[in-house]
Amino acid sequence: MKQQRVLILGGGFAGLECAKGFPEDRFEVTLVDRWNHHLFQPLLYQVATAGLAMTDIAQPLRSILSHRKNVTTLMDEVRQIDLVAKKVHLKDHVLDYDYLVIALGAKTGYFGHNEWAQHTLGLKSLDDAMAIRKKVLLAFEHAESANDPQETARLMTLVVVGGGPTGVEMAGSLAELASVVLKGDFRRIDPSSAKIHLIESGPKLLPSFPAPLQDYTCRRLESLGVTVHLDTRVTEVGAGYVVTSKERIESDIVIWAAGVEASEVTRTLAGVPLDRGGRIQVQPDLSLPAHPEVFAAGDVVSLTDAKGVRVPGVSPAAMQMGRFIAKTIVNEAGGGATAREPFTYFDKGSMATIGRSAAVATVGGMHLRGLLAWLMWLFVHLLFLMGMRNRATVFLQWVWSYVTWQRGARIIQP
Amino acid sequence: MKQQRVLILGGGFAGLECAKGFPEDRFEVTLVDRWNHHLFQPLLYQVATAGLAMTDIAQPLRSILSHRKNVTTLMDEVRQIDLVAKKVHLKDHVLDYDYLVIALGAKTGYFGHNEWAQHTLGLKSLDDAMAIRKKVLLAFEHAESANDPQETARLMTLVVVGGGPTGVEMAGSLAELASVVLKGDFRRIDPSSAKIHLIESGPKLLPSFPAPLQDYTCRRLESLGVTVHLDTRVTEVGAGYVVTSKERIESDIVIWAAGVEASEVTRTLAGVPLDRGGRIQVQPDLSLPAHPEVFAAGDVVSLTDAKGVRVPGVSPAAMQMGRFIAKTIVNEAGGGATAREPFTYFDKGSMATIGRSAAVATVGGMHLRGLLAWLMWLFVHLLFLMGMRNRATVFLQWVWSYVTWQRGARIIQP
Repeated sequence: MKQQRVLILGGGFAGLECAKGFPEDRFEVTLVDRWNHHLFQPLLYQVATAGLAMTDIAQPLRSILSHRKNVTTLMDEVRQIDLVAKKVHLKDHVLDYDYLVIALGAKTGYFGHNEWAQHTLGLKSLDDAMAIRKKVLLAFEHAESANDPQETARLMTLVVVGGGPTGVEMAGSLAELASVVLKGDFRRIDPSSAKIHLIESGPKLLPSFPAPLQDYTCRRLESLGVTVHLDTRVTEVGAGYVVTSKERIESDIVIWAAGVEASEVTRTLAGVPLDRGGRIQVQPDLSLPAHPEVFAAGDVVSLTDAKGVRVPGVSPAAMQMGRFIAKTIVNEAGGGATAREPFTYFDKGSMATIGRSAAVATVGGMHLRGLLAWLMWLFVHLLFLMGMRNRATVFLQWVWSYVTWQRGARIIQP
Repeated sequence: MKQQRVLILGGGFAGLECAKGFPEDRFEVTLVDRWNHHLFQPLLYQVATAGLAMTDIAQPLRSILSHRKNVTTLMDEVRQIDLVAKKVHLKDHVLDYDYLVIALGAKTGYFGHNEWAQHTLGLKSLDDAMAIRKKVLLAFEHAESANDPQETARLMTLVVVGGGPTGVEMAGSLAELASVVLKGDFRRIDPSSAKIHLIESGPKLLPSFPAPLQDYTCRRLESLGVTVHLDTRVTEVGAGYVVTSKERIESDIVIWAAGVEASEVTRTLAGVPLDRGGRIQVQPDLSLPAHPEVFAAGDVVSLTDAKGVRVPGVSPAAMQMGRFIAKTIVNEAGGGATAREPFTYFDKGSMATIGRSAAVATVGGMHLRGLLAWLMWLFVHLLFLMGMRNRATVFLQWVWSYVTWQRGARIIQP
């Protein structure tokens, strides 16, 4: 039987899990990624607040896949997908495929206000996280040097927009950076006097969590020194300020964790239905309408699954979709005449940390909070990280960094 | 007694050791550094070849000094030193002093050919190391994608200029990166076929080492796959090539480890004698001629000490000078009428690694090579790192990174 060529665009959770699912004898897999690493996005906020180093959460794709001789990794950028000719145009190559898997992920979205991008900092990639980290650490350095108390106060005002898990984790982590980690390091300023604002347009933080955990989260953040603004919408972002429905805040550091949209490549797909955020409206089996050899997985996907569950843009969903697609392709290419199965999402629950000693978690109908939730969070991340070959070493290093506050991660470089 | 204000310019080995030497009750110390971290420069080549992460070798100055309440750290750049008015002009401040310590270090030097700087990569700072690392990793990625065998060969040609310890360590480490670490990760290229050239103008590598160790080093490097060029001078460096006295080599990656000169700030010192590399020709007590309240320490210094020994630009010398100056100032400010002592350098020996399993070391009259030398190298670095407060955790992390090849350090980011 002829070798089937599978082309996977994107080396995130979906693309990587998919690439691992093909037997060596029948499938030739090419994985394309813009960078050379797989990023553990749930811990990006840790890098952004100098709690972990970049190398603790990113792994070279080649390392992960090096023992899979039928997988070739290419570092290149996707420009355009030609569904008719079955070709993908990259920056430096043009590739053909028998099967295509689009797993390009999401980027920061501004609900139409793309002009706000220049005045805010997103948190979707390693360079996003490093940019935040550098800006925050520099702000404290400049505040230490500043002679004007108003300037000092402005430099030490940080704003996080978006009260979902990303925003909550960022705000809690920033508060601890200021009041625990940097304490004692400065002589002219008191870092714990930094003002951290968390702005959420809805009535509660963590909209997808049960009410008792939402309230707990709000109280914990406030006790960490975060000023929580609920029912507050951002109306304008400019150079050095944010305007909400309630007030104007002077700040150079506005972190946007309020929305994402699909990779812009989806808009090059002729005739394919997209939702408002650019996500592909896939068939129940995750393939594109009218193109059964093309699939989509992860944050680019818009789907209500076979059980009526709206599939969220979270890493477990991305991994499940990636694995599901690999199985579908392998079964079909095997020559079986069985119809394809529809995808169903298995919700393993959600969790969010609030600083380093507390968290909230919901699994099944069970709610957990505080230290117990935090331990569960640690355990789940252990499983994630251990799941990859040779990750015991990475996990130990990660725990070590975490426990020691990884002070080294506070290096500012140009 | 009035508090004496000590201003230290530079947070490297010399400046840091100096800053730690002042009792809290009588001295107010300000340490100025362009970045916020102390850099363990001897291991920079490891970061450059993805063997260690940036955070393994850099520590925030504030962390190191946080318990010393009389030391203020300022992140700023030195623009000009006014010895007459006893003021130092920084980018954002002007500071007075009672005592000044110039410990600004060295930068890459091109023996007058400053136009070569744009076509070469130095190795004196974290961003130098990160730039080399990124360029080298990208070269392999592009070689994997390239369709032209000549282009592939060119992309995988790396040149190191300078056969002293820095160049030897870089070349050995690059050879291992190509032939050990990246092996198996690529499908179209064989990374171990990369050509690594080490160019030295003199007749031997490691000019300051005894002859048997020089020859051993050359043989070990060659067995690692490095092409060693002795008695070869670089005559021209351009975009994509290097011309030596013997041949022309096509390469985009030319690492310059052949020379250093003092920080350019020394040239703003009116009336102070400098050598050809801009180093300050200090008095035997490390002070500036005609300015007994101003000292210099570390790589900015040009000195033959009281025993007739030419003080080398190495970290132990910098640390000894920094400590010596602190002691001198403390004694003098204590009101003692004793004359100042002259500085003498205690040579603890030299070492250089050749890849990860061998090294050469010379201590006293003793020569060591191979595994024994490598273990000594490890032990000495342990002492260095442990000497700083709370460095046990850093050391363990460092050993762990080293032993596991720190694959995470191979992340390419923009």
